[in-house]
Amino acid sequence: MSNAAATQRIAERFYELCSAGKFDDAMQELYADDARHVEVMEMPGSPYKRITAGKPELLRMSEHWNRTTTVHSSWVGRPLVNDDQFLIEFKMEVTASEGPMAGQRMPLAEHALYTVKNGRISEARFFYSCEK
Amino acid sequence: MSNAAATQRIAERFYELCSAGKFDDAMQELYADDARHVEVMEMPGSPYKRITAGKPELLRMSEHWNRTTTVHSSWVGRPLVNDDQFLIEFKMEVTASEGPMAGQRMPLAEHALYTVKNGRISEARFFYSCEK
Repeated sequence: MSNAAATQRIAERFYELCSAGKFDDAMQELYADDARHVEVMEMPGSPYKRITAGKPELLRMSEHWNRTTTVHSSWVGRPLVNDDQFLIEFKMEVTASEGPMAGQRMPLAEHALYTVKNGRISEARFFYSCEK
Repeated sequence: MSNAAATQRIAERFYELCSAGKFDDAMQELYADDARHVEVMEMPGSPYKRITAGKPELLRMSEHWNRTTTVHSSWVGRPLVNDDQFLIEFKMEVTASEGPMAGQRMPLAEHALYTVKNGRISEARFFYSCEK
């Protein structure tokens, strides 16, 4: 199977799970054990660094997000594949119960660039506006 | 200067030129001599390969595009920076005078992921839907 075909398969399954709100299942099923998330910067008020590595640590981060974030609505764009990478757009309306934005309903919009290696997602790199 | 700050500077200038329709100037000014474009696939009817390398070759490709494409409208999204990369969304309405879509006015939408090295753009990788 070509890189692009293998990436497409992972991207489709990832999209299917995320569209159904099953973000943790997507991570559990499709992430490599040493997968990493690369944020733009360290979030103010967050216990997490810019780069978080390892599926167990990423699942803990997700658990923390689930515990402290109410998701009012979410939208996931179709994955766009180029070779070993795919790009997905996410839009959400959320209210966090912790941190500097606690209690404020706010829109989130980001693009996530996923890299696939050996049939698993090895990296997610996030792109979003940091302007106020 | 941090990677992110250097990338932000290039991204802002690139955005400024592209928003003014000066795509060739952006390439001339900001691309490394050995910069490369990585498309999703070889375009049907195009003389170009999936990967085109070298600024002179990229400028020739752009010249060919300019000669054979009428751009009716274009929109460029704000660049989103993460470390040494930035992501930009492009939307256009075009009519090509050559190739399988010749004479048909059509929308184009793509995201381009740029990598910056030593203060110049070293790679552009494109993401777009290949579905009909």
